[in-house]
Amino acid sequence: MPLNGADAAIGKDPAENGNHASHQPNGKVYDVNYEEESHNDINAVRYPDGSVRLRNPNIELMDQDILYHLALGSGSHDLVEMFGDVKFVCLGGTPKRMEQFAYNIMAEIGYKLPCGTTLQDISHFSYRYSMYKVGPVLSISHGMGIPSVGILLHEVIKLMYHAKVQDPVFFRIGTCGGIGNEGGTVVISEEVVDGALRNVLELTVLGKTLQRPAKLDRRLARELKALADPEDPYDTVTGKTMCTYDFYEGQGRLDGAFCDFTEADKMEYLEKIHKSGVMNIEMESLAFAALTHHAGIKAAVICVTILDRLKSDQVLAPREVLDEWQQRPTKLVSKYIKRYLQMKGRLSLDGHGSIAVKSPRRFKLVQQESETYD
Amino acid sequence: MPLNGADAAIGKDPAENGNHASHQPNGKVYDVNYEEESHNDINAVRYPDGSVRLRNPNIELMDQDILYHLALGSGSHDLVEMFGDVKFVCLGGTPKRMEQFAYNIMAEIGYKLPCGTTLQDISHFSYRYSMYKVGPVLSISHGMGIPSVGILLHEVIKLMYHAKVQDPVFFRIGTCGGIGNEGGTVVISEEVVDGALRNVLELTVLGKTLQRPAKLDRRLARELKALADPEDPYDTVTGKTMCTYDFYEGQGRLDGAFCDFTEADKMEYLEKIHKSGVMNIEMESLAFAALTHHAGIKAAVICVTILDRLKSDQVLAPREVLDEWQQRPTKLVSKYIKRYLQMKGRLSLDGHGSIAVKSPRRFKLVQQESETYD
Repeated sequence: MPLNGADAAIGKDPAENGNHASHQPNGKVYDVNYEEESHNDINAVRYPDGSVRLRNPNIELMDQDILYHLALGSGSHDLVEMFGDVKFVCLGGTPKRMEQFAYNIMAEIGYKLPCGTTLQDISHFSYRYSMYKVGPVLSISHGMGIPSVGILLHEVIKLMYHAKVQDPVFFRIGTCGGIGNEGGTVVISEEVVDGALRNVLELTVLGKTLQRPAKLDRRLARELKALADPEDPYDTVTGKTMCTYDFYEGQGRLDGAFCDFTEADKMEYLEKIHKSGVMNIEMESLAFAALTHHAGIKAAVICVTILDRLKSDQVLAPREVLDEWQQRPTKLVSKYIKRYLQMKGRLSLDGHGSIAVKSPRRFKLVQQESETYD
Repeated sequence: MPLNGADAAIGKDPAENGNHASHQPNGKVYDVNYEEESHNDINAVRYPDGSVRLRNPNIELMDQDILYHLALGSGSHDLVEMFGDVKFVCLGGTPKRMEQFAYNIMAEIGYKLPCGTTLQDISHFSYRYSMYKVGPVLSISHGMGIPSVGILLHEVIKLMYHAKVQDPVFFRIGTCGGIGNEGGTVVISEEVVDGALRNVLELTVLGKTLQRPAKLDRRLARELKALADPEDPYDTVTGKTMCTYDFYEGQGRLDGAFCDFTEADKMEYLEKIHKSGVMNIEMESLAFAALTHHAGIKAAVICVTILDRLKSDQVLAPREVLDEWQQRPTKLVSKYIKRYLQMKGRLSLDGHGSIAVKSPRRFKLVQQESETYD
């Protein structure tokens, strides 16, 4: 992989490590931005060629590793062949949104499908997550909440390892409640905190509680912010994101099945977190930040606010407006990916899709004619 | 609603409460089994006619309540007309399984659809949960993990309120890891605990941590156990269920993307929880038990084990075997619902579906012929 000045880099050559057979031992400049405080030991999360190494010695000793919730396996599938070219992993809530994202990014990066083919949900048989692949981009639905995105991340990080992917970049694109900004604002997370404003993911392992720092790549956040178009009719901001385990009581909503606090209690709490810098609240970023950080994977969270919680609890914007808002984080991430591939000379803009259209007008006519005839 | 001796009952007549207009104030025997320690104040969770009352004074003051994740609303939909006849709410992980369950229960209870109709996913436009309705039975997918099932329960409990449903019964049917029982065992939960063996759901509300007892209806669990067929080629047992926030490290698995403990540590932990009575581990029952209990709703969790965690971490059973195993909790719940409706005289066994078949053989022939001709 060529050295690329535009990507973040750390200077030191990692020591060689021999147990990932096909990887090149030559010292190189890394694609990922390891801030000093994050990872003292890059050898724990990367092989010398920059491909993902697991913080789990058991996996390489296993005969096969079944990625149960993805309907993939290291014994059943040639994961290097299937996923070896992946660079970007984009996660979002619903299968529908991530299918749309896949088709959008296909148009953006000019990725061409062979004639007569279409995208297929690679994880269809898991009935849990949907996964689409468009060249170097994976688009995967993560469901709702920390446990759901957590299961997915364990398996996607293992997938990166099995596929020998080098320095992948992960994005979460989604929706959120805004704190003090109007509906439709794009928030790029600089930091993630839980409902008690601690920036750690707490987990119980073998009965003991442990904490993992929930850190995101600040440089990536700045780069994304810089890509926002000043002409956009909405704001793109960076700030602190709160992540909760519950949508109603856990986010101080008055309109759940239960509510033991008053409007005044709620407003006092929201004002307090607003003052502490919280720009938005959602339900997945804590696990997303903690697990990608622990794996040494460069990651960013980009969400659009669908209401201002300082004004109301219920989502009242019409479907079409919400649909347009949901395109906003997508557009920003697409721009980043496109720019990256352009710099790498991996971008072709000579069309996409498995059907080549010469004249859109005549194309439509042929379709209509074809539908009409018996 | 007629008094029914077979259902659990509490003796005392609740005081009348006038703010749910159409409900009858007459004292009656309740359908739900309130154990003494559970609810000192039934008036908090039921109107005098047994219909669901919310522990949230705000909802009845709202102009409309949008059940955002169900794609339903109290202002946009006539929820009494649509859901007023519901008695059972069955929740399970995936949309596919809950669609199957809906068709199964349709056959079991002989529910007839009008000719030329089929079931429709009522929550399709939420792109989050799938909801099917078969007469008195709702079948809804809840996704994975406590937050996902938590959002759903808040909205389904509100739906019960808006639809004025009387004394609904909730079931969660799912899969789990077994502790000391072989794959395919059906576990009916008597009690639910978290990863540190506490039987409470912890939640952070307005920055403060609070705990809600995660209790299930023990009588309902016993009744379900009694319905198990002794001829079944598998065991149906009752016991303690552990519910975790993570599938890998949180359940002591050695095969996640990260693992900092040894096989010996894991086995020591699993043996310890086994000794404390834990029969199985899954990821939703804590919220399911805590939220239904807080709402005074009779509820049960019935899961089938897909492996024995004392023997392995990976799910290795083939798809067809897993599919058959997943039918087992379904069959038990179907039996319970069928028996209940039978006792109420609400069961008709004169066919189901919107196509009436006189001769299955000729029916198949006609279908085949029809497919063949151009």
